[in-house]
Amino acid sequence: MTESELIRWIRNQKQDESPFVLKGVGDDCAVLDPSPQSRLVVSTDVLVERVHFRRRWMHPYLLGRKALLVNLSDLAAMGALPSACLLTLTLPSDLTGGFFRAFMDGFLEEVRRWKTPLVGGDLSRGSSVHVGVTVWGHVESGEPVYRSTAAEGDAVVLVGDVGLSAAGLNLLKREDPTELADIRKEAELAAWAGDAFRWRCLKAHFLPTPQIQAGDWLRRNGFASAMIDVSDGLTIDLRRLAGDSRLRFEPGPRIPLEPGLTDHISKEAALAGGEDYALLAAIPGDRLERLRNEYPGHLPEWRHLGSLRQADADGSMETDPAPGFDHFARRP
Amino acid sequence: MTESELIRWIRNQKQDESPFVLKGVGDDCAVLDPSPQSRLVVSTDVLVERVHFRRRWMHPYLLGRKALLVNLSDLAAMGALPSACLLTLTLPSDLTGGFFRAFMDGFLEEVRRWKTPLVGGDLSRGSSVHVGVTVWGHVESGEPVYRSTAAEGDAVVLVGDVGLSAAGLNLLKREDPTELADIRKEAELAAWAGDAFRWRCLKAHFLPTPQIQAGDWLRRNGFASAMIDVSDGLTIDLRRLAGDSRLRFEPGPRIPLEPGLTDHISKEAALAGGEDYALLAAIPGDRLERLRNEYPGHLPEWRHLGSLRQADADGSMETDPAPGFDHFARRP
Repeated sequence: MTESELIRWIRNQKQDESPFVLKGVGDDCAVLDPSPQSRLVVSTDVLVERVHFRRRWMHPYLLGRKALLVNLSDLAAMGALPSACLLTLTLPSDLTGGFFRAFMDGFLEEVRRWKTPLVGGDLSRGSSVHVGVTVWGHVESGEPVYRSTAAEGDAVVLVGDVGLSAAGLNLLKREDPTELADIRKEAELAAWAGDAFRWRCLKAHFLPTPQIQAGDWLRRNGFASAMIDVSDGLTIDLRRLAGDSRLRFEPGPRIPLEPGLTDHISKEAALAGGEDYALLAAIPGDRLERLRNEYPGHLPEWRHLGSLRQADADGSMETDPAPGFDHFARRP
Repeated sequence: MTESELIRWIRNQKQDESPFVLKGVGDDCAVLDPSPQSRLVVSTDVLVERVHFRRRWMHPYLLGRKALLVNLSDLAAMGALPSACLLTLTLPSDLTGGFFRAFMDGFLEEVRRWKTPLVGGDLSRGSSVHVGVTVWGHVESGEPVYRSTAAEGDAVVLVGDVGLSAAGLNLLKREDPTELADIRKEAELAAWAGDAFRWRCLKAHFLPTPQIQAGDWLRRNGFASAMIDVSDGLTIDLRRLAGDSRLRFEPGPRIPLEPGLTDHISKEAALAGGEDYALLAAIPGDRLERLRNEYPGHLPEWRHLGSLRQADADGSMETDPAPGFDHFARRP
């Protein structure tokens, strides 16, 4: 298909109406009505072939779904709800047929599920697949939750799992299952995985759950004094939350790893792995009991990881390099 | 440099304060205050190595400048003023030093010039350079100008030049001047070009001028009934402006090419070339005389190209394929 045909195809896909979007795809810019919103939040992330994903291990439909999901996680970390998104897609010329359609099917499925209308973008030729997504979110009243506003004595809680995604990636690296490039349906992927735990790991890697509802609930009800999502590994993101608030993290007695996880991946790798898209929230210590009583049963359960303490007398945080994912760091 | 060092470097660059930006680089999302704005407009464009630019012909400082400039042109086409931007930058690992710094120098220079604070982004490793920019603009009151709202009898005017950028690209292809990869200063590029016209062509290609002031003036003063920027070639973008308004374009007697241009490039190539970032505006016919009298002398001059007429009886536009740039079209 040509670029114009691809754009026409996208314009013809059904999307829900949104009061925020006055004009979507089809002009020089999308036009948005900001008036009902108290604050807009915005974030962008890229998925690069052979860095963030391999085509040989992943159906383009799943890549399309993941591309929106990982961006929504940044909104969750602000306690914001999704408003709209933009997509840039760079493709080799031979992928404008089935690959493009399957990718867009997955992307637009999540667009509808999360009420995040696709309002514009850019399509380009390129030597490898490169996906860029920009998302907006909003808070209807009040302020979003920042990373840097935790206070001494706050408890740190985790919503969602860590280490499963890294274990899923390990599984792909170890088994090089090129047959997965052709498996689109979750039920067939689960069957391929063979046992429930392996499927949980694969699913965490391919289709992470952005903790939008939990982030919104924690913000709206005044529980979260600071939040961050775990995208580069629990160790590094815990340190970021504490460090940006000029505090240090003091771990509690239990490390929050799933039973059975260390059969698949070392503890260190699980804590450093990244791509978890769980939520770390700082909760004032005196509200932890109320959180226990009031937290809704339909939200993913939270776990208490430890607490935030005054940084050392000289104001420094720990200085040993934290494990976690850095795109340009030298690999050992 | 590592990813964290690159981000720290960006955070330490001086940027002007903006009332729109409550939180810029450094959290999961940027936070924007939309309240003073009537409408937000948003656009995104990518620049892909070996598709949109070649490193062998272009200093990274110029690439950084161009990356913001071409995005601002989409705001100009809505009659909007710049508010903020996001940047995604994918780089091979060996380019995180001088290349990264020079690129960011150029990008941030235009950020300051156009008061478009950089509020977030994503850095990634990749096998080639890939730049993605998202820009917001705003109109303080009233509505932005769409493509599709021209009326029968409107005149079409052009602000800016067409064909020069294509001639600049032709020059690069013909002469393969790899020494340009090391030339950062405009004065030295002008000296390299040798004559004033060659330098105009190169400059149009490397550093296009987004017609922000002209677009804002035409919108604010009620002259523009529809606008579009010329990014894919004059022929195709004229047809888009007319077609989206269900009209057809009737050319006037003069084709708006610079004297001397056809010594460097064929007329057809100039009209199909693209990357002009000029502005096409539809002006109600009865206001053309007033435009002549009131258009400010400090804005780039406008030229009258023709007018918009009723489409053929069956509602169809012309059906011959328009020349212009399509990313996935087969090359002859």
